[in-house]
Amino acid sequence: MDLSRNGHPNTKPAPKAVVGRVSLYLRQLESLQRQGLTKTSSHQLGEPFGIKNAQVRKDLAFFGQFGRPGIGYHINDLILVLRRILGVDKDWPLILVGLGNLGRALLRYRGFQSRRFHIVAIFDTDPKKIGQTYQGVTVEPLDALRKGIAAHKTSLALLCVPADAAQRVADLMIAVGIRGILNFAPVPLAVPPQVSVIAVDLSIQLENLAYKVQGSLDGVSWAG
Amino acid sequence: MDLSRNGHPNTKPAPKAVVGRVSLYLRQLESLQRQGLTKTSSHQLGEPFGIKNAQVRKDLAFFGQFGRPGIGYHINDLILVLRRILGVDKDWPLILVGLGNLGRALLRYRGFQSRRFHIVAIFDTDPKKIGQTYQGVTVEPLDALRKGIAAHKTSLALLCVPADAAQRVADLMIAVGIRGILNFAPVPLAVPPQVSVIAVDLSIQLENLAYKVQGSLDGVSWAG
Repeated sequence: MDLSRNGHPNTKPAPKAVVGRVSLYLRQLESLQRQGLTKTSSHQLGEPFGIKNAQVRKDLAFFGQFGRPGIGYHINDLILVLRRILGVDKDWPLILVGLGNLGRALLRYRGFQSRRFHIVAIFDTDPKKIGQTYQGVTVEPLDALRKGIAAHKTSLALLCVPADAAQRVADLMIAVGIRGILNFAPVPLAVPPQVSVIAVDLSIQLENLAYKVQGSLDGVSWAG
Repeated sequence: MDLSRNGHPNTKPAPKAVVGRVSLYLRQLESLQRQGLTKTSSHQLGEPFGIKNAQVRKDLAFFGQFGRPGIGYHINDLILVLRRILGVDKDWPLILVGLGNLGRALLRYRGFQSRRFHIVAIFDTDPKKIGQTYQGVTVEPLDALRKGIAAHKTSLALLCVPADAAQRVADLMIAVGIRGILNFAPVPLAVPPQVSVIAVDLSIQLENLAYKVQGSLDGVSWAG
């Protein structure tokens, strides 16, 4: 494999769409590894997601030269490299701010743990929740944010507070060292350039789905 | 406004990215309406999301000609038109399949209710959950899916079952009339062309965030 020291021949970060697809290829590689396979192809990596093999090759080429024509990719090697590139070859401590229903669901979301994301601290403003323990983590008041982030050396946060508190809490988190926010509040956040935000607005995704579906409903029979 | 009968001058559906941004403009319009304003501009519609006014104009032009140079957009009118275009000018009954932690959080997610999405039926395979009532809805066995979908005339489903059950349950839902699936299971679904799927894989979004953040962590001090 032709890799620079950090496994990343490009100096600028890959576009979001490329990173998203590489996450999918990694999932497929892990699935193939569990099935006991040792080699795979661009076709096999993209096929479950409807991604063409030329696109798979182009996406992977962004990070280095893997695999060989006629031979394909070594599954174990490529998993290690992609995990390193994506930053999931290590544990990522997370903080969770806002322990409503969604916060509680995220706390138990197995998808995070299996990708080595661990919620190490929980913050809320509700006196009834502060001091309670959920999934082995004790809820702390928002005032303790700075101390908690320093103690756990976390830079990623799940923001699950109500919409009208989101910007204020985000400002607070950024002031004490948070660099990445997965925002579940249905409002856009204004953040400085060194901070990354990914918004998860479930109602927008449902709206997109409704838009796609509404055109195809004429003549549908539910009596089936 | 220059609109065809159904408010949709294009015959083919708008690209996903356009629909997603139009959902954001609608949110901003509703926010301006709540502030008592009656007129707005492309700049004001895109500004909270960092979208340039030329892009706003181009996105809206996909659906018709709204607003006038020098005058701008009538907020109330544009809200009504965009709601109709997006299909959120009516109630959308949803079914929820799989009542784990995430399912329970979605059941209480206010963002759905405020966009007129209502969970009208819940299905699970766990005998301990079947017959129980959550948020006023009684959990039914998966066998009752066909009858439940016919009774509620639903075409949208939230799929919150474990990964290894997702494809089987999706097949079942599609066979009885579901046309749109918001998939929370961390696996891709194979579906026929008349069915739409939007995947919500929270761990992929967190991976994308970790990727963005890992490059910017050198020299960060958590001691603040």
